[in-house]
Amino acid sequence: MPLRSTLDFLLHDWLDAAALTQRERFADHSRETFDAVLDTCERIAREKYAPFNRLVDTEEPRMEDGRVVLPRATHEARRAYAESGMLSAAQDYAIGGMQLPYTLEAAANSFFAEASISIGSNLLTVGNANLLMVHGTEAQREVFALNEFNGRWSGTMCLSEPQAGSSLSDIATRAVPDGDDFESDPLGPRYRLAGNKMWISSGDHEMTENIVHLVLAKIPGPDGRPVPGVKGISLFIVPKHLVDRSGQLTGERNDVALAGLNHKLGWRGTTNTLLNFGEGTYPVRAGQGPGGLDGRGAGAIGYRVGGPGDGLKCMFHMMNEARIGIGMAATMLGLAGYRASLQYAKDRTQGRPIVPRSAAGDGKAGKDASAPPVRLIEHADIRRMLLAQKSYGEGALALNLYCARLVDEQHTGSPDAADEARLLLEVLTPIAKSWPSEWCLEANSLAIQIHGGYGYTRDFPVEQYWRDNRLNMIHEGTHGIQAMDLLGRKVVMEGGRGLQLLAGRVNATIQRAMEQPELAAHANELARALSEVGAATKAAWATGEPAEALANAVPYMQAAGHMVLAWIWLDIAVAVLARAAASASPLAADDTGRLGAMRYFFRYELPRIGAWLNVVRTRDMTCVEMPENGF
Amino acid sequence: MPLRSTLDFLLHDWLDAAALTQRERFADHSRETFDAVLDTCERIAREKYAPFNRLVDTEEPRMEDGRVVLPRATHEARRAYAESGMLSAAQDYAIGGMQLPYTLEAAANSFFAEASISIGSNLLTVGNANLLMVHGTEAQREVFALNEFNGRWSGTMCLSEPQAGSSLSDIATRAVPDGDDFESDPLGPRYRLAGNKMWISSGDHEMTENIVHLVLAKIPGPDGRPVPGVKGISLFIVPKHLVDRSGQLTGERNDVALAGLNHKLGWRGTTNTLLNFGEGTYPVRAGQGPGGLDGRGAGAIGYRVGGPGDGLKCMFHMMNEARIGIGMAATMLGLAGYRASLQYAKDRTQGRPIVPRSAAGDGKAGKDASAPPVRLIEHADIRRMLLAQKSYGEGALALNLYCARLVDEQHTGSPDAADEARLLLEVLTPIAKSWPSEWCLEANSLAIQIHGGYGYTRDFPVEQYWRDNRLNMIHEGTHGIQAMDLLGRKVVMEGGRGLQLLAGRVNATIQRAMEQPELAAHANELARALSEVGAATKAAWATGEPAEALANAVPYMQAAGHMVLAWIWLDIAVAVLARAAASASPLAADDTGRLGAMRYFFRYELPRIGAWLNVVRTRDMTCVEMPENGF
Repeated sequence: MPLRSTLDFLLHDWLDAAALTQRERFADHSRETFDAVLDTCERIAREKYAPFNRLVDTEEPRMEDGRVVLPRATHEARRAYAESGMLSAAQDYAIGGMQLPYTLEAAANSFFAEASISIGSNLLTVGNANLLMVHGTEAQREVFALNEFNGRWSGTMCLSEPQAGSSLSDIATRAVPDGDDFESDPLGPRYRLAGNKMWISSGDHEMTENIVHLVLAKIPGPDGRPVPGVKGISLFIVPKHLVDRSGQLTGERNDVALAGLNHKLGWRGTTNTLLNFGEGTYPVRAGQGPGGLDGRGAGAIGYRVGGPGDGLKCMFHMMNEARIGIGMAATMLGLAGYRASLQYAKDRTQGRPIVPRSAAGDGKAGKDASAPPVRLIEHADIRRMLLAQKSYGEGALALNLYCARLVDEQHTGSPDAADEARLLLEVLTPIAKSWPSEWCLEANSLAIQIHGGYGYTRDFPVEQYWRDNRLNMIHEGTHGIQAMDLLGRKVVMEGGRGLQLLAGRVNATIQRAMEQPELAAHANELARALSEVGAATKAAWATGEPAEALANAVPYMQAAGHMVLAWIWLDIAVAVLARAAASASPLAADDTGRLGAMRYFFRYELPRIGAWLNVVRTRDMTCVEMPENGF
Repeated sequence: MPLRSTLDFLLHDWLDAAALTQRERFADHSRETFDAVLDTCERIAREKYAPFNRLVDTEEPRMEDGRVVLPRATHEARRAYAESGMLSAAQDYAIGGMQLPYTLEAAANSFFAEASISIGSNLLTVGNANLLMVHGTEAQREVFALNEFNGRWSGTMCLSEPQAGSSLSDIATRAVPDGDDFESDPLGPRYRLAGNKMWISSGDHEMTENIVHLVLAKIPGPDGRPVPGVKGISLFIVPKHLVDRSGQLTGERNDVALAGLNHKLGWRGTTNTLLNFGEGTYPVRAGQGPGGLDGRGAGAIGYRVGGPGDGLKCMFHMMNEARIGIGMAATMLGLAGYRASLQYAKDRTQGRPIVPRSAAGDGKAGKDASAPPVRLIEHADIRRMLLAQKSYGEGALALNLYCARLVDEQHTGSPDAADEARLLLEVLTPIAKSWPSEWCLEANSLAIQIHGGYGYTRDFPVEQYWRDNRLNMIHEGTHGIQAMDLLGRKVVMEGGRGLQLLAGRVNATIQRAMEQPELAAHANELARALSEVGAATKAAWATGEPAEALANAVPYMQAAGHMVLAWIWLDIAVAVLARAAASASPLAADDTGRLGAMRYFFRYELPRIGAWLNVVRTRDMTCVEMPENGF
């Protein structure tokens, strides 16, 4: 089934996306305008992205004379994307946007992710500009955000450093006020920055006239030393090329130097850089103030966004969008592998059918050597691997679109609905990011397996999907970080109201499913799973000791994720049967397939949660108590 | 803990390998000679293999003027291995061997697998020669096997074809008698072969004077057409260069042509080839008989091994060894990743300790931002990922050495013991191959995860281990094939006696563990798991319909594998406590670590079997019944 059919079903038959057009912000939209956006993105992805997915893997970004060289296809894909208007899809008409719901933007972007996950990094540019629209000054919005939305410039997020990955409180990049008049710069309070940033996607390239870096750095306190912890972190706009208030390049290069490229296992089309700020590689003109950074240079010029110490708070705005984006990326890699292996399983013949007992001459059943070979898809284990992929990929897509729909609710719903959506998103975001990155990676492994030996050759696309997807369990916060966020923060914040809200939605689905005889047993299984997750949450925190509660945060997240996906699948099944009842016609093949994937998930997947929750509930300390010299 | 300590424990404290020296065949051996072999292999692996593991990944084999070019390091590693005598480690003194038990041979080879899995393919040469020692004529043994054991030549196994991978009955390579006198050739019945062979490891290279291909092909029946099914398959020796009865090269190249190299995801140091037999690339001299292969040439010359139609039976001798070899390969990649990530976790600081509730000032516990950063290994989730790797890798190593010990029993035990070992090996071989290939791959993924972003760069070794290991679930029979073998054949053959034998050994461990208060609970859990696997086996076959029994063969194999590994770990724990009791000293750190890994396995892993067995027991047909157009 092509991606478009799946999207149409999820958007319209499941999420009722057209209802959004009743809201003032989206009033000019209709099913037709939504379709037109999807059509355009599908076409660009097919023409400009998909044909070059292997190319960008084999022709990795390389440095020549300090510049990043990328294949021409990457430049052309970027240009086509920018020209489509998708960079400002969600923005106001007033600034050239489409006022498209985020649900549709996410759905439309899925075509690019499926065609070539690493050829573009437009989501970072959009996230960067979105952050500035919320936290930037008017000048920062006009100069930086608008030039990102219109495609002239691109954006990055610069958080990690070589010594500080997950632990952002340990960043060492410093920012000091740039002269006595530092607060009077039209582009915002001006600082000089010095430090090194690691893992910066699209940190340098020649695809756009300028690059807008959003950089976390620490402003020294009164004692001249950085403030410890996250409270000392502020956020800065550091353009690659200096610009004036009208957005014109001044002709001067800021002191941001490409120090190296990271050579990766996958996701190779996207340049990944180590950047040096303020090392004196491109000294910024004298007279702009020495800035007080002694030693190697005057520092890179940066304009503060938000108040001093607000850096992480501002950045989290971008990180949550980025997490849903990574969840979508992992999902689309999973679906790409599913589609490739489904086609292969239909085309390739291998082996023989199993002979029924009644037909076996000698009383012993087995393979019938005289029968003609069958196609792979006729073997039970191949079907199991296909159905697993379908349930992971389509389920993850549904979950991510559900989250996107919550984003729209948060932005355009009634105050109560918006607040509920906000809190549900807090709970669901770590799952929407982590679950696809784990299970759609597994889906990619199954896609290789279906191909047999061909699967591990570079003649087929599936090994690249698998390599690309392995980065997603690390991108934008590792599994461990997401799990600490979920169990340590999200399910206990506001008195546990987020988990209660989720339980309410799950229970609503259970109630509707109970009315369908075909789904009643699954409804009961989901009710039991929900109750087990709830009980494990309580048991984990029974002593109130974080070290005990969080010792098994990842198994907890895995179980919560599987419960959530079972809910999503049951909710889809309810929608499928409701549609069939309304039309009084037999189920379409796609719908039969959805019910099959739902059944697979309940029979093969949901029972896994028992083993995960067992260690959570008992606050098992086996791993913590292992003496270090015993490893 | 270095590999050598683990091997010493498993060989001597657990498997009592020294007891083998009481047997006539191994009477000249002692703990000292065993240690000397391990010392030598450890040194060669350290000096000639490990330093070049990344090199052979980046400098893939390539074709130049029809020849395969390999890095010099590959040639030197091969030479050092051959000079060590390991190629004939298990052979009789009379032919230059060491008469080493297979248990020790396997243990010694683990050093090379850990250092660089793909730099050598010596196990194929040994397996090839071993097969000829069993099934070849005296001349075939003298000419081909002995020149493989002494390192002069190397060997391959040529089974798969482009259109026939798992389904060997569909091979299309033909072999016809080479002239009327074809049966009088001193090297064996002489045939002409034509066909294409795919996935041939080390199928062509310049490392040895000659290459001995063992090729499966079909001899046409009286009607001139190949006999359908596996009954028509025969086995042939096809040397790359023709040789005479004295083992000298005649100077004539046989018609075996390198048609292409496969470019793989991993395991890149090993050349993987497509070979064309008898296409006329190297026409073999006229007068030797036209052979009747019309068209492209006279065919490659091959000497039949065993009787016509005995090909697969002969080849299975080699395939079972190869399967244990793949299990060991997967295991050692798992342990290599474990070691790398353990070191990284000890070296790298990141994040803060969790503050106990009692010490948190505001009553809410959390991270202490003012504390100095801690090392990764101090975080609970990192420890969980380390302990998982340890339990997978060391458990898999123990299982594979246990199987190797059974091979020795089969060869040198009393008739009853030998027969029991043979049958146990039948049941355990699919698990020894499949379990490490699945779970040590997962271990490699966890090793990447511990490294964070660095893990997905090529600056650290773990991403290569993960890529290399992905091939092992396909090599030498896919997961699906192993599972059909286990549930469709091995556990039911001889009236189910193999499974009964295994249950007997598991129960013996349970009895001994019951005597240790510390292990009694685990003994009960294992007893329950054993009973559940037994019940699921019966339920799967309750209707006698193979299509129903085998619909969930892979989940069955996964459950059986986890039960077997729990048994192995419990048996190790019994040995650890017995040794401690005998010495009346406190547990050494290594032993504490073994008990920790055992506990981890019982608490985090064994409970997984419930979900797998559930679908087996109910003969769930969800996947089979999914209509094709629903995918």
